[in-house]
Amino acid sequence: MGRVFFYTFANKFLIVITSAQIKFVKSLSQKKFRKELGLFVVEGDKMVKELLSHPHWHTEMLFALDGWLQSNPARGSHQTFAVSEKELARISNLQTPNQALAVVRQRSREADTKLLKGNFCLLLDQIQDPGNLGTIIRTADWFGIRHIFCSEDTAELYNPKVIQATMGSFARVDCLYVNLQNMLKALPHPYPVMAALLEGENIYSTRLPSEGVLMIGNEARGISPTLLPFVTHKLHIPMSRPEGKTQFPESLNASVASAILLSHLKKK
Amino acid sequence: MGRVFFYTFANKFLIVITSAQIKFVKSLSQKKFRKELGLFVVEGDKMVKELLSHPHWHTEMLFALDGWLQSNPARGSHQTFAVSEKELARISNLQTPNQALAVVRQRSREADTKLLKGNFCLLLDQIQDPGNLGTIIRTADWFGIRHIFCSEDTAELYNPKVIQATMGSFARVDCLYVNLQNMLKALPHPYPVMAALLEGENIYSTRLPSEGVLMIGNEARGISPTLLPFVTHKLHIPMSRPEGKTQFPESLNASVASAILLSHLKKK
Repeated sequence: MGRVFFYTFANKFLIVITSAQIKFVKSLSQKKFRKELGLFVVEGDKMVKELLSHPHWHTEMLFALDGWLQSNPARGSHQTFAVSEKELARISNLQTPNQALAVVRQRSREADTKLLKGNFCLLLDQIQDPGNLGTIIRTADWFGIRHIFCSEDTAELYNPKVIQATMGSFARVDCLYVNLQNMLKALPHPYPVMAALLEGENIYSTRLPSEGVLMIGNEARGISPTLLPFVTHKLHIPMSRPEGKTQFPESLNASVASAILLSHLKKK
Repeated sequence: MGRVFFYTFANKFLIVITSAQIKFVKSLSQKKFRKELGLFVVEGDKMVKELLSHPHWHTEMLFALDGWLQSNPARGSHQTFAVSEKELARISNLQTPNQALAVVRQRSREADTKLLKGNFCLLLDQIQDPGNLGTIIRTADWFGIRHIFCSEDTAELYNPKVIQATMGSFARVDCLYVNLQNMLKALPHPYPVMAALLEGENIYSTRLPSEGVLMIGNEARGISPTLLPFVTHKLHIPMSRPEGKTQFPESLNASVASAILLSHLKKK
């Protein structure tokens, strides 16, 4: 006889995974199902551990290897499934599955306008690459940014590639999908709105504000023409042109440009 | 009757692609075949265009849509294949194939030690994510870095994900795979060797050298213990800790950390 269908571990019922559950978790790799069910997937030892003790993010299901469950005693009200490495590989979105996978409830968040004062927020215009969005969220977290306003055509926060690239920062930075034009119109004037533009001023020789919006545009198309009129500070990260070099890159990666600007704005 | 097997376009023979050729191009998505054949794949309108006029990189085969071939007259000695969108999709590594794909000969390069003087070079220790490596090469190009020394277990330059993430910078920055310990031993002493480390000094309040090696470690494991003794400048990118925040990220993405350090070292 194989494994029993239910067994207990550390006084908690562990449920053996069924093919319907595998299908269910796999369905969350599609935006349609994530939206319909209001759930998403978080993977990997560190991120899952952090999430299970998070006060605001609710884990609904936990799938983990026996060894991981032994060293991470059960907490919270989620269902726990003990899985084999083979089963984890079947539900995982990662090339190298990492011990634990959580199905987590999505949260709708609102901007806390008090937190905007004296700080910077990011405004992402059509950042479509999930890895870039996740990396920007991670970097924003490092630099103490609390809010990221995303255009409605920016990559979806709950895309597994975004979530994994944040390395857990998605739980600490509020990403809000809004109409950016309306959001900019509603800002108290004059509120500094910075943007990285090729014709901007050298960030190292410009006086920068101590609060404001930092706008990051799509790498190929730049900032949308409808948003440009709101920009009060056009900035530029200067390129080095060493002697003898005749060909140059056209631009920086969006997450790299965001990081350089944030580190410069927040340096101390 | 369908298409003829050979036809001419702009006085150049165009060859219709066969299933053997599709298989051949697809095989280059595997490291084993790239190594064996000394070839790699570059994709997309901009990058292919740039490469075709490059003096040092030799394109062996060009696969492109009719429309693209019409607006980009033939140059060089490569074979040109006119492909349909469907055929391009079959040989492409991209989710959204972009008009042209080139099969290019790999180059072996050597460090030009003259270029190391008065400049910075990067040293990558186990950067295994291809997207990160490509982004680091692109950023290095922006900041005028000529040489990147990679540990032998760093992602392979000719991996299509690396090449695409460089946005063409792979052709302007020399990536050399070496034994990093031997390379560091061979440096003229005292030569500044900087590394980003958690216990390092705040980059914004430390006096930084005007030339040297900038070492970037693996995100999870940090700098290898065998390389640490060579570090002369331990640096740290300070994290913001706003009031009321209790949980913090552990680290920055490797390509983001490289970008912040490079921008700070090369600022002017």
